[in-house]
Amino acid sequence: MGSLNWISNQPTVQEGDLVELASTQTKFFIFRISAGQELQTHRGVISHDDLIGKSWGSEVFSHKGSPFYILQPGIADIISSTKRNTQILYPKDIGYILVRLNILPGSVVAEAGSGSGSFTQILGAMVGDTGHVHSFEVRPEMMALAQKNINRLNLQNRVTFYNHDIRAGFGINNLSAIFLDLPNPYDFLDQVKESLTPGAFFGTLLPTANQVEKLLISLRRNQFVFVDVCEILLRFYQAESEKFRPVDRMVAHTGYLVFARSILNQ
Amino acid sequence: MGSLNWISNQPTVQEGDLVELASTQTKFFIFRISAGQELQTHRGVISHDDLIGKSWGSEVFSHKGSPFYILQPGIADIISSTKRNTQILYPKDIGYILVRLNILPGSVVAEAGSGSGSFTQILGAMVGDTGHVHSFEVRPEMMALAQKNINRLNLQNRVTFYNHDIRAGFGINNLSAIFLDLPNPYDFLDQVKESLTPGAFFGTLLPTANQVEKLLISLRRNQFVFVDVCEILLRFYQAESEKFRPVDRMVAHTGYLVFARSILNQ
Amino acid sequence: MGSLNWISNQPTVQEGDLVELASTQTKFFIFRISAGQELQTHRGVISHDDLIGKSWGSEVFSHKGSPFYILQPGIADIISSTKRNTQILYPKDIGYILVRLNILPGSVVAEAGSGSGSFTQILGAMVGDTGHVHSFEVRPEMMALAQKNINRLNLQNRVTFYNHDIRAGFGINNLSAIFLDLPNPYDFLDQVKESLTPGAFFGTLLPTANQVEKLLISLRRNQFVFVDVCEILLRFYQAESEKFRPVDRMVAHTGYLVFARSILNQ
Amino acid sequence: MGSLNWISNQPTVQEGDLVELASTQTKFFIFRISAGQELQTHRGVISHDDLIGKSWGSEVFSHKGSPFYILQPGIADIISSTKRNTQILYPKDIGYILVRLNILPGSVVAEAGSGSGSFTQILGAMVGDTGHVHSFEVRPEMMALAQKNINRLNLQNRVTFYNHDIRAGFGINNLSAIFLDLPNPYDFLDQVKESLTPGAFFGTLLPTANQVEKLLISLRRNQFVFVDVCEILLRFYQAESEKFRPVDRMVAHTGYLVFARSILNQ
Repeated sequence: MGSLNWISNQPTVQEGDLVELASTQTKFFIFRISAGQELQTHRGVISHDDLIGKSWGSEVFSHKGSPFYILQPGIADIISSTKRNTQILYPKDIGYILVRLNILPGSVVAEAGSGSGSFTQILGAMVGDTGHVHSFEVRPEMMALAQKNINRLNLQNRVTFYNHDIRAGFGINNLSAIFLDLPNPYDFLDQVKESLTPGAFFGTLLPTANQVEKLLISLRRNQFVFVDVCEILLRFYQAESEKFRPVDRMVAHTGYLVFARSILNQ
Repeated sequence: MGSLNWISNQPTVQEGDLVELASTQTKFFIFRISAGQELQTHRGVISHDDLIGKSWGSEVFSHKGSPFYILQPGIADIISSTKRNTQILYPKDIGYILVRLNILPGSVVAEAGSGSGSFTQILGAMVGDTGHVHSFEVRPEMMALAQKNINRLNLQNRVTFYNHDIRAGFGINNLSAIFLDLPNPYDFLDQVKESLTPGAFFGTLLPTANQVEKLLISLRRNQFVFVDVCEILLRFYQAESEKFRPVDRMVAHTGYLVFARSILNQ
Repeated sequence: MGSLNWISNQPTVQEGDLVELASTQTKFFIFRISAGQELQTHRGVISHDDLIGKSWGSEVFSHKGSPFYILQPGIADIISSTKRNTQILYPKDIGYILVRLNILPGSVVAEAGSGSGSFTQILGAMVGDTGHVHSFEVRPEMMALAQKNINRLNLQNRVTFYNHDIRAGFGINNLSAIFLDLPNPYDFLDQVKESLTPGAFFGTLLPTANQVEKLLISLRRNQFVFVDVCEILLRFYQAESEKFRPVDRMVAHTGYLVFARSILNQ
Repeated sequence: MGSLNWISNQPTVQEGDLVELASTQTKFFIFRISAGQELQTHRGVISHDDLIGKSWGSEVFSHKGSPFYILQPGIADIISSTKRNTQILYPKDIGYILVRLNILPGSVVAEAGSGSGSFTQILGAMVGDTGHVHSFEVRPEMMALAQKNINRLNLQNRVTFYNHDIRAGFGINNLSAIFLDLPNPYDFLDQVKESLTPGAFFGTLLPTANQVEKLLISLRRNQFVFVDVCEILLRFYQAESEKFRPVDRMVAHTGYLVFARSILNQ
């Protein structure tokens, strides 16, 4: 099923498949199967050749006898394991952003900056073959990394990268959503407005209250409406039926999410 | 762009379009444009005929002079406005569920029960024309409502409804994700396991700790692994640059989310 | 036991006692027993005379047969039922403030403004007969209300009120803690510093991020150290053993708490 | 001012004073001044003799030139630095417990178990010279540690320790509050009820939902009413005026707090 890109529709692992090798004791590994290669882990070595032909969901063992499961990687784990140089968006924020920005198969959207491409990956995955992602990044080395990460998922046909400062505008019109992952989104609202379809969706994530306060002034000045500011807290629980309780510690802050809709200037 | 279903790619509103009429003072309205019809609001009447030909994102006025914006509705607002008889999932939970269950264009997934079809709508939207949603509901009147809500978004080709108790099994194999929105998911894990592709994604939402405790026992017994239990808290802020602060009250609980992966029995 | 002020050490209710009449079905009532008086509730009338001589903790019935328990009121319920014209501090914040400001029997402390005296009540209760509370309020009618609330608890010997703007200074030295419940605490840090024992405790509660940002600048300028900013979220649960879960809604924000210690200027 | 126990009312540090030496760069130290002694820190050595005669709130330097402030320790820091073998209550929970259990100067209260005595310290501090704390602990070595911590604050006259299993009852009547810090409070509700003044206050803290569910059954069976279950979340902020934001991580769970009032059996 070509439209699923990195996902196999075969019952067993094949050369070239993207696999997740996960253990209940340690972290997981996401990589492409390449005959003759080996995966080194703290819990022993696993040869790619031993994985080929195994059923998805089956258990395999390292040379030290440590058990691993062979899985098809989900987008949440892919993002967590993305090679990166920067802070990335967390799945808790990403899911809500996708819903609030109405990112769907067929959507044509833009983001700036690309960063290491982790959010680009999920945008590329979600817009499908009939949509498109325009991704802007001024730092050439970051753009190269983002491209590499997109290629790894076979999403290159759905994403166009621009090594280009959006101060000069996006150069594209009629976008259905724009997400800015930049420290100063308040400097680019004219450009956002110009490129969004009237009424379409704007979003950003900002770490500090001061940035949000500045953005709120700019959004009003640029006639954005239906402005929402919120934050998402994700709390994990100990998954034990006899000792059910929240885990001791949690991520307390990633950023404030800001959403708004761009209307026609009156 | 047919693949976007309810979304128009024209610059102006046309007969048959799904529109959102939103005011900064009151709630919003989502409806299809039908020449000759009128929308009654607390802030006055608006004739559909007056909307036809208007640009998306423009401002219109009721007969009492109250301003509204004409927007294309996003999935979050669509869900909030879905006709329903039951508790629905909230966007804060939905976004995270989509990411954790790896729902993508091309995914073939199942849910039970359909309820009023609000989550069915978003699943239908996300799987695109190349994926499919199998939705199970034992109550005929609920299934009828869910179907009506799916038809409203032109998603009927992507969703198959079954008026069918999943106790007898889903009758479908190789699903990439199953979401149970039922009070007793622990009673159906055999059936889930049988229908999920090995290694694929299971999720559910449960209001009480007692239900989670029971489910954790069943998940272990049925050889599900990588079990995560969590909850998502969404806090809104007052969007005022000079008085930036959380709003006074919030939704404190919708449910505990539980995710797991189904592995091949050893 | 005179030092407990409003609390009786007799096993039964007597004329003049402060009682809490509480029902599991409705709100509670806190009042002083006065022979011949009646309490009117939505669930019927209760005569004070019928309460006199009853054991604390026993059940009584209104003329309509609704059950109530006769209790000695705790400080948390007293605060919640305080007559007031203004926003009051919540028990969740109060408890943490007391601990962080080291309010103990024997402490000599100040607050401004008094407001309706709800926090004054708890300060008066906590400092005991060997401590003292200096409470400043510029609005005469608020000061009168605060005094009335303090008198109701027999705490008048522990609290001195000043109808006096702290801009001119507190006029007292060697305080072990000062709490400001004012919108602009940043305007009074010189005065706070002058009146606090060197090294002693400062605290305030502010609703908006903007106020906190301003205060942080002033605290630094005035050589306060060990500055902590925090907020406290209190989540209640449904107290049912078979349906244990958080309640649906909660207070999302009362204010940001700010604490600091005043050091000797270098 | 004898009633303040560990707190000096002199302007300068004297032999025998309890001091807190705190640095903005490292942790703080709480100890008694003893002529001839030295404090060893990662940032250099400080001689007690150099502290004697210094004003409270003044700055001193280690032999390496690192700055410290000389402060009188507050109860929150004292608890945090208490020598302990076990999990202790956090200030966020303690403050709310004090308010909900109505712990005041003059209160006569009990707790079981004493643990390392950290909560005993704050109870002893709060009840004043006119109140009393009865503290029960079955493990002799823990009781010895709790006693040592109480002695350090000169609170020994306010606290009686019992090396005694409360299964046999507290052996004291008319208590105004009882706090249980035990894994199985549901086993001791008869004993609690017998020793509390009718209508008085019961509280406990439990880490898991399962324990709360069991306790709720027992509370109902033993005719406790006004049962509240809650949890307190404390979130710290970065105290920077230009980068105001929550800190990255937080304590997500200490325990569920349960409060109830004991009524006369009908």
